Amino acid sequence: MAETNRQLQIAELPTDKLSAQHFTMAEAPVPSPGEGEVLARTLLLSLDPANRAWMQGATYRAALNAGQVMAGFTLGRVIESNHSDFAPGDLVEGDGGWQDYFCLPGKRLNKRAPREPLTHLMSALGVTGNTAYYGMAGIGKPQSGETVVVSAAGGATGSVAGQIAKLAGARVVGVAGGPEKCARVVDELGFDDCIDYREANLFPALKEACPNGVDIYFDNVGGTTLEAALFRMNLHGRIICCGVVSQYDTANPSPGPRGVPGLLVTKRLTMQGFLVGDDPALVEEGQQKLSQWVDDGSLTVIEDVVEGLENAPAGLVGLLAGENFGKRMVRVSD
Amino acid sequence: MAETNRQLQIAELPTDKLSAQHFTMAEAPVPSPGEGEVLARTLLLSLDPANRAWMQGATYRAALNAGQVMAGFTLGRVIESNHSDFAPGDLVEGDGGWQDYFCLPGKRLNKRAPREPLTHLMSALGVTGNTAYYGMAGIGKPQSGETVVVSAAGGATGSVAGQIAKLAGARVVGVAGGPEKCARVVDELGFDDCIDYREANLFPALKEACPNGVDIYFDNVGGTTLEAALFRMNLHGRIICCGVVSQYDTANPSPGPRGVPGLLVTKRLTMQGFLVGDDPALVEEGQQKLSQWVDDGSLTVIEDVVEGLENAPAGLVGLLAGENFGKRMVRVSD
Repeated sequence: MAETNRQLQIAELPTDKLSAQHFTMAEAPVPSPGEGEVLARTLLLSLDPANRAWMQGATYRAALNAGQVMAGFTLGRVIESNHSDFAPGDLVEGDGGWQDYFCLPGKRLNKRAPREPLTHLMSALGVTGNTAYYGMAGIGKPQSGETVVVSAAGGATGSVAGQIAKLAGARVVGVAGGPEKCARVVDELGFDDCIDYREANLFPALKEACPNGVDIYFDNVGGTTLEAALFRMNLHGRIICCGVVSQYDTANPSPGPRGVPGLLVTKRLTMQGFLVGDDPALVEEGQQKLSQWVDDGSLTVIEDVVEGLENAPAGLVGLLAGENFGKRMVRVSD
Repeated sequence: MAETNRQLQIAELPTDKLSAQHFTMAEAPVPSPGEGEVLARTLLLSLDPANRAWMQGATYRAALNAGQVMAGFTLGRVIESNHSDFAPGDLVEGDGGWQDYFCLPGKRLNKRAPREPLTHLMSALGVTGNTAYYGMAGIGKPQSGETVVVSAAGGATGSVAGQIAKLAGARVVGVAGGPEKCARVVDELGFDDCIDYREANLFPALKEACPNGVDIYFDNVGGTTLEAALFRMNLHGRIICCGVVSQYDTANPSPGPRGVPGLLVTKRLTMQGFLVGDDPALVEEGQQKLSQWVDDGSLTVIEDVVEGLENAPAGLVGLLAGENFGKRMVRVSD
């Protein structure tokens, strides 16, 4: 066991684009778990667009501040436990942050059954996979023959959400950045089509790719893509609001999309925001389905693993620039 | 029976604010009903903010054009019928337009039972009353103790929607224009509070008027009011999108509200647009409830009747400026 706990702290909150210089590496003693607490070695650290949103201010969690260890979702192995639910060697996940070791109250940890490869616990069977199931299967409920559009289609959540809609028999059109990524969305993930938002005018491109209109739009990005989808929605369409990655890494978030609320009225649309976890039974259902689909090969799992805690800042910056394909995470230790 | 049918035609579509000069009075022969058609004398003509929206382009109906008789919802008395469901003397409602007589296929008309006063068939028991019930009781479903905000609270729909929420036991806060109208919303309609959007900064004003946040926002206006409400919504709040009157009478509609879709995600909000009539059973339920509430005095009906077809243009212009209190309509004949 290492003597010190490397921690990536927030050196300074970004006012515009995030860079690796907003973080600084520090060392602290490996903590000792107090009463009810559990100490774990970090195995995998999740990188998510939401990490950047947390630096903008309060969201569903308190705002982050300079001097804090950067927050992040982690999978770890228990080293020492003062909580009866956990024993050394157990796999646990929680809000462990960007560090080699995390020490949290047992009630804030979730035990995971081992799985090969371990990375699946953080991708298709982790928070982003759960989120995709929750939003697409639980809220969107795509029907056979419907047209479903998914933005950030090559991302951790979008890649799974679109495949879930395909499994339900829908026509699925992705929106992603760059020709290579779009090709992979179609070839590797099985989407019916994928629009390159960097090249295309989204309004005519969506019209061409969705000749029967859009029944469900699974929105990971907000902004112009949301606006273009709004104008292409069918009557009684559903927009599932999962994330707003286009507005996280900027000092000047755009105003809301045109068409809100006018198009919602005339087309009788529903826009629904959600966070995974509001309905634990739905998460449980999702875990069962996702495991089954991964096991039987009907869900393709795409991962993008960055090696080493020290590379987490660059990894997050790159994620926000859209350089990843599939779920990006950091392998902190084996 | 008059020899001619006065018709208010669209002289020119407005490019910015609507004025009476956008209409011109013409005379045409009183039409003869063809096969399956019904001729009716116009008794009451509904004035609605949506009339102006129809002049902006296609909505849930085709765009209006210069040279057409202005569209509007009417209540009439049958003079001559070539449809077996209707007989002379019957009361009928439909899309009759701004004219002394309307001639429509019977299948596009709805028969109404006589009622005193007749104006109630166009206010609390007409489309706007139905709309209020449909959106508030059918979609919003306010619960006792919840906080409900209603914009255009002194308008035809808002005045009824807020009272429905009061009857459900909610705390109801209106938003309206001008101190006199706000006072009437509280004193005559029984709202708990009413904010004057012309005077107040809506963000702090909503905070003060809604110390426990907002559970349901019934939106008739869009724009800044919607934006302020979004920032005050409680977790899992519902926004019912009924209309967008702030954006109808202008050449430059505002961009959408900040907070879409970001706040929808973090607060898990649902925004739902609707048009009355998508669920006929709900409309029927609403008619029964509204009639009962009007009869037993638990619903206050506020009407604003303009006398004479020739005053319809000024009546609509004034409605868009917010000069009405309650349901504005034109009495075309007795």
